[in-house]
Amino acid sequence: MDWGKYMIFPLNRSEFMKNTEIENMAEKWFEANINDVNANWFDLLRFKTVGTDLAYLDECRKCVAWLEDWLAANGFSIETLGPKEAPQIIYAVRKGESDGTALFYGHYDVQPADVEEGWNTDPWEPVIENGRVYARGAQDNKGQVWASLQSIKACIDSGVPLPDLKIVLEGQEESGSDQLIILLEKEPERFKADVVIVCDTSMMEGYRPVIIAGLRGVSSISLRLDGPDYDLHSGSHGGLAPNPATVLAKMVSGMFNQDGSIAVEGFLDEVKPPTEAEINLAMSEPFDEIAYKAETGVLPTGGTIGVPPEIRGALLPTIDVNGFHSGYGGPGGKTIIPAYAEVKLSMRTVSGQDPHKCIDSVRKHFESRVPDGMRISVADSFPGKPAFKVAVDSPFVIKARQILSAMHPDGCAIKYDGASIHVVGTLSEISEGDTVLAGFGLSEDRIHGANESFSFKQFKMCFDYTVKFLSEIGKEI
Amino acid sequence: MDWGKYMIFPLNRSEFMKNTEIENMAEKWFEANINDVNANWFDLLRFKTVGTDLAYLDECRKCVAWLEDWLAANGFSIETLGPKEAPQIIYAVRKGESDGTALFYGHYDVQPADVEEGWNTDPWEPVIENGRVYARGAQDNKGQVWASLQSIKACIDSGVPLPDLKIVLEGQEESGSDQLIILLEKEPERFKADVVIVCDTSMMEGYRPVIIAGLRGVSSISLRLDGPDYDLHSGSHGGLAPNPATVLAKMVSGMFNQDGSIAVEGFLDEVKPPTEAEINLAMSEPFDEIAYKAETGVLPTGGTIGVPPEIRGALLPTIDVNGFHSGYGGPGGKTIIPAYAEVKLSMRTVSGQDPHKCIDSVRKHFESRVPDGMRISVADSFPGKPAFKVAVDSPFVIKARQILSAMHPDGCAIKYDGASIHVVGTLSEISEGDTVLAGFGLSEDRIHGANESFSFKQFKMCFDYTVKFLSEIGKEI
Repeated sequence: MDWGKYMIFPLNRSEFMKNTEIENMAEKWFEANINDVNANWFDLLRFKTVGTDLAYLDECRKCVAWLEDWLAANGFSIETLGPKEAPQIIYAVRKGESDGTALFYGHYDVQPADVEEGWNTDPWEPVIENGRVYARGAQDNKGQVWASLQSIKACIDSGVPLPDLKIVLEGQEESGSDQLIILLEKEPERFKADVVIVCDTSMMEGYRPVIIAGLRGVSSISLRLDGPDYDLHSGSHGGLAPNPATVLAKMVSGMFNQDGSIAVEGFLDEVKPPTEAEINLAMSEPFDEIAYKAETGVLPTGGTIGVPPEIRGALLPTIDVNGFHSGYGGPGGKTIIPAYAEVKLSMRTVSGQDPHKCIDSVRKHFESRVPDGMRISVADSFPGKPAFKVAVDSPFVIKARQILSAMHPDGCAIKYDGASIHVVGTLSEISEGDTVLAGFGLSEDRIHGANESFSFKQFKMCFDYTVKFLSEIGKEI
Repeated sequence: MDWGKYMIFPLNRSEFMKNTEIENMAEKWFEANINDVNANWFDLLRFKTVGTDLAYLDECRKCVAWLEDWLAANGFSIETLGPKEAPQIIYAVRKGESDGTALFYGHYDVQPADVEEGWNTDPWEPVIENGRVYARGAQDNKGQVWASLQSIKACIDSGVPLPDLKIVLEGQEESGSDQLIILLEKEPERFKADVVIVCDTSMMEGYRPVIIAGLRGVSSISLRLDGPDYDLHSGSHGGLAPNPATVLAKMVSGMFNQDGSIAVEGFLDEVKPPTEAEINLAMSEPFDEIAYKAETGVLPTGGTIGVPPEIRGALLPTIDVNGFHSGYGGPGGKTIIPAYAEVKLSMRTVSGQDPHKCIDSVRKHFESRVPDGMRISVADSFPGKPAFKVAVDSPFVIKARQILSAMHPDGCAIKYDGASIHVVGTLSEISEGDTVLAGFGLSEDRIHGANESFSFKQFKMCFDYTVKFLSEIGKEI
């Protein structure tokens, strides 16, 4: 492979990289190693690490071995943890030169990638276009993990003193981090750290860095409504047989009030409303509806009417249909009453909500609406972890914010994010340290969708921030 | 192929076949020709004649050629009508020995057959099990057409006097009979007949024959609701982006009132309520809910609550979801807000309703409910022909009923059917004759669904009836 053509990386240093020795060394390292950085990143993206699907378990194993080889070559002691029947956990440690312990958390698993969902190229073969790398996981989370690992190598190679490092990379983030959560509770000592660094979130438009003040929880459930034993002729049976697609549509629709708020009985009972300080923090960064439309193609008309998007996009819970499938979907028509209908739902939960109770209330919503003679069943159910809030006044958060603020004329924002990283709450608690959530995604990366990508510019910002932050941690202890 | 093993046909003659010379000759013919009858029927079923999908156009052409060869070999003059870019119409005529003209109408096109919908065997390779032939089209309509054509051949071969015959076999019945309807209106003289014979309907449970007193019309529409430009992350966008699956579910659900009746504005405006005589006729055959549950797996809880199934299954209009597809449907989960959602709907219309107006009202229902920034589009729209009612006092209907009554201890029922044969109303009108709708389907045939089948017993009943009816037509003129 000719890496010459990929040398379109923006090598001009970030604005914040002024004149410290460390920054100069990191920059020099990056210029010297760009070809290896890219080639290895692409290799990492080629592993089809769909952690939710056992068909891809072997790909996960290969990816783990590959990452561990890389970490070992850079002086880490490695353990592979968790049962072999699931995507395993990489646990790598390195004794540092400065004070304190930093735990870096990331994940190598990715969302599924169906060609039918509209990929322009093979999701498992990275392609570069206009300074962006297109592949499943290009950003979430392989891209951000890889940029962070490169910053560690840059420090090691350049002799920049680092704190003790614990690197934890799991393969079940997209499905609930089951094995890592078990391990955290079983062997908490492994995870003690002064600071937990998570680089799995996004910036604002225009490359403005963001520190995340909190995340929602995510839980999901798939249900199937069975009607007739087989697809029925819609003429002979129309008006007689109940239609599973119509009935399921009614059940789905009934989860919401006219104003878009959630109507599922019990779902909102334990919601702890945001405090005034939290609302002020959320409202401190005004939502740009025009920019949102330009990015996504839709106005932000989801959620509860009348609630500002700054609040409903992050501090209110949601229930979203991820998939609804019933009956015929091919070309032309087929006049049937389908035998069954299926729905996949994800819910984002907020402070106070117990994910198990939320799932239960959704399940009951469906179960209590089944017409006589039809059957509802739960195909899958993944109760996640509760929502999580960061200690925004921690010295590590303040330090990270200083570093990130220097990277953009408008400084670094601090805001709540509507997304979820299952394990972060538990990891933060078990570590007994402070957690810093800063990532370099942008909405145009289209994570979880078709044509996911990550730009070289974002990659480099992630690298720059991590070099600087890691080199400063010792000073905060 | 060894046809010996297929000789499980019930060769004992129907009860009504007593001792006339004609019946004896037909029975003898059938016994002598059983192997050819079956082998050719199976060949007919192997043509993948999905008329709605242009990918199968060549299969339709081959099927037409095959049927025409058979008809020509039996003394018919053949014309192939309609444009070559669509499944064509077979028009075959034969000068008869007795008085009058009978037009036999049938169709060689079939519904699509997706292996994923649950077929146990290849839908295009007929398989015999327990006296039933399993294949797409085994019954609807190839099985019934083939049995009817065999009765004609039996009469010809045995010297039974027949009326003048016009055989019309089309390839667009499942999608609206467009080309045949154009032809009927353009060249009405071709279709003049004393009686139109249609064998595309069903019996009651227990092989009890039925004369159909009326059919509903069928129209269909497919709609697509577009939201975001691509699938969005349900965390970052939940509560912000409107969810096309949720919104479409609400639109679908909103087509119905709480009692299950249709709420679409304007849809019911022109419904001509059934007359007392029609209601009495419909109620004359009581609906068996237990038998229905045994057959289909569901209780007849569809349609409007409080209306008896005898009425709502045939004399009231319906709107059914044939397919609803949005977002992820694979294994595991995928926490997205889908970019779009699609629904395919069929509606059954009754006397008084104009199919174009019905489709318009459904389209408006969806268009008027699109949230700001989302887009709805009509992917397909097939306005069908209006509902049709038979002249139940016609001498041909009375004669057919006599013949069919002799075939079952409880006699022949007369009832309205909820299904539709697009072209029948127009054909009946243009022919200026009376129409007789009697068919030999059973609900266990599962037409339009997976594992469609037709039993040898039903096939033989169809053969017996048609021999008898054709031989009697001359006497009614």
